[in-house]
Amino acid sequence: MRRVLQQTFSVPFQYQVLFTEGLFKEDNPLLARLLKGQNPAKVLFVIDDGVAAAHPYLQQQIEAYAAYHTDSFAFHAAQLLVPGGEEVKNNSKPLQAILDAVNRWGIDRHSYIICIGGGAVLDMAGFAAAVAHRGIRFVRVPTTVLAQNDSGVGVKNSINAFGKKNFLGTFAPPFAVINDSSFLTTLHERDWRAGIAEAIKVALIKDKAFFEQIEKDVPLLVARHMPAMEEQIYRCAQLHLEHIGHGGDPFEQGSSRPLDFGHWAAHKLEQLTNFRLRHGEAVAIGIALDVTYSYLQHMIPQADLLRILNLIRGLGFDLYVPELSSQEVLQGLREFQEHLGGRLTIMLLNEIGRGIEVHEMDAAKVTAAASMLKEFQETQMPA
Amino acid sequence: MRRVLQQTFSVPFQYQVLFTEGLFKEDNPLLARLLKGQNPAKVLFVIDDGVAAAHPYLQQQIEAYAAYHTDSFAFHAAQLLVPGGEEVKNNSKPLQAILDAVNRWGIDRHSYIICIGGGAVLDMAGFAAAVAHRGIRFVRVPTTVLAQNDSGVGVKNSINAFGKKNFLGTFAPPFAVINDSSFLTTLHERDWRAGIAEAIKVALIKDKAFFEQIEKDVPLLVARHMPAMEEQIYRCAQLHLEHIGHGGDPFEQGSSRPLDFGHWAAHKLEQLTNFRLRHGEAVAIGIALDVTYSYLQHMIPQADLLRILNLIRGLGFDLYVPELSSQEVLQGLREFQEHLGGRLTIMLLNEIGRGIEVHEMDAAKVTAAASMLKEFQETQMPA
Repeated sequence: MRRVLQQTFSVPFQYQVLFTEGLFKEDNPLLARLLKGQNPAKVLFVIDDGVAAAHPYLQQQIEAYAAYHTDSFAFHAAQLLVPGGEEVKNNSKPLQAILDAVNRWGIDRHSYIICIGGGAVLDMAGFAAAVAHRGIRFVRVPTTVLAQNDSGVGVKNSINAFGKKNFLGTFAPPFAVINDSSFLTTLHERDWRAGIAEAIKVALIKDKAFFEQIEKDVPLLVARHMPAMEEQIYRCAQLHLEHIGHGGDPFEQGSSRPLDFGHWAAHKLEQLTNFRLRHGEAVAIGIALDVTYSYLQHMIPQADLLRILNLIRGLGFDLYVPELSSQEVLQGLREFQEHLGGRLTIMLLNEIGRGIEVHEMDAAKVTAAASMLKEFQETQMPA
Repeated sequence: MRRVLQQTFSVPFQYQVLFTEGLFKEDNPLLARLLKGQNPAKVLFVIDDGVAAAHPYLQQQIEAYAAYHTDSFAFHAAQLLVPGGEEVKNNSKPLQAILDAVNRWGIDRHSYIICIGGGAVLDMAGFAAAVAHRGIRFVRVPTTVLAQNDSGVGVKNSINAFGKKNFLGTFAPPFAVINDSSFLTTLHERDWRAGIAEAIKVALIKDKAFFEQIEKDVPLLVARHMPAMEEQIYRCAQLHLEHIGHGGDPFEQGSSRPLDFGHWAAHKLEQLTNFRLRHGEAVAIGIALDVTYSYLQHMIPQADLLRILNLIRGLGFDLYVPELSSQEVLQGLREFQEHLGGRLTIMLLNEIGRGIEVHEMDAAKVTAAASMLKEFQETQMPA
């Protein structure tokens, strides 16, 4: 070797997560202000068809909003509907449809794609926005508790390939995220609940006070009390943002992935149940499994185990599905490692509010934890 | 709007550009050292079939090298040949073949894809590496002067779509770049020469001393004197790295693109000639056009214009092709702006070694500049 040139630089990123209600009411200035630049912006809206069905006037409202705020919008008719749910990540047609629209409407690197939908649609559209022209400004409007809590405020996007979840994707911070609580009013019961699993997750590993707040709010959350849900979402989003921004590895170049607590089994369960389980429902079971395993490893006392399982059940989650007893679940550990690369690193629980990383799991104890959860699920839990 | 969370963080990147000769000679420790970690690394080689044809023992050599350095390589048979040249970016099959291999060989985020080839193959394979598992470590081994000079040392990757160059891609710094001069020995005449256009480009806008060095070295470069070429590549790579690392916008979020001096017309000429022109040949004409335009706008004196055109011709480049007189060339300005987004920003020349940005170009003067180049091309130039 003769010579070496060393390249070193940093790239700064910043974005806001904005909270609002009624984003497309004509007199809500938030979005118009966000887009306002020297010239009106070219904006392509990508809309989850499930959201459009639940909000029949949404598309008209968006068009009227854009037509009203002509200082901010160069045109008002660019809307694309895509199927909602995980299936949208499994084939390339919706992705291709977005790229076609980018080409047709002349959307460039200083234009916007605003995506309104659940986590799967945001993941897929975010990937399209990240690779078209090497990155179009992407505004997420997450419409589920799960996406407002967690994936919608983060820096990742993805689609599935080779039967593997998130096989393709990039790290690409959004231009902005807008959490609009009005989309939560029409959620089905399961979707209202499912996202709370991510709040339990982040509370367990990082913030005991938040865990206790969720415990206290169970009756309100179950009764669909919106202010309690909004508070839960704000705090959960904040903890996720703090970890990404200040955890030291925003683009996940190492092997540590604390925010994936409970997720190694969850990803596998989603697959084994053919996505009968929602992501949040699978995460609730994944958390239950890793918490029970932590108990079996003498890392947390029985009282804490019961307290956590009670909270999960109290919100209406299952602790167990038959697929959890399948030997294939353990394969999830290998797949988790392969996706992350490097050394197997799994977050477990040391106490409520504090996680701890380990580099191996005892297969027999994972199986024992699954059996315990089967029993818990079948028994009436102590209050 | 009720509340706002502000996210702010920086992501540090670093990589080395290493210069060597005979990368796969068993006793060359460079690559084995680069990959050495706690465990042997999983490595997928992606090889430009044009390079494999010019170096018939390359694949065997790579396999032997990996088999010899078992501390660094987990296996030694993972090689994938892909077609060379721009065509590899025009359809999705080669990209898909790489993703298939990633899946088949269990290549993860801590594994490596090492790509050996010209700029087009590096662009395409780099895109595959950037999106698989949200980013696999990517080592570029550029085999042309153009790629060793410029694209191979940068942070971009891409494929073409909708008939538009680089429509899809990402910003993704490589894990490392290895410039091996032995690959240059077998280049065809045109490929030996073409890449020097990028050196002229960066010298003109940034470094008069480098421009004068190239002028002095014309006879050596034309005679394929390797040390002169290596010096030219080292300096050109260094100037590109400096701009990316210290130019203030490594991921091109603004509208300014100094390193694209001469490129707006070049991209269009490549397309109009159906890639009969090599990228570097098109860039040489694009530079000639923008330099002549700068002269017509009284930004540089005639003596400098002639000096620059003499250098370009002295290296054996054409200054003109009939397509340059097509009215469609001006459309390249619009496409350049659309790809970059935002305000049209074109680099012109203020003096040799110093560029200056403008935000519009006079169509009549562009046409006049093309006509002047047609004449220059047809006349014997003064020495």
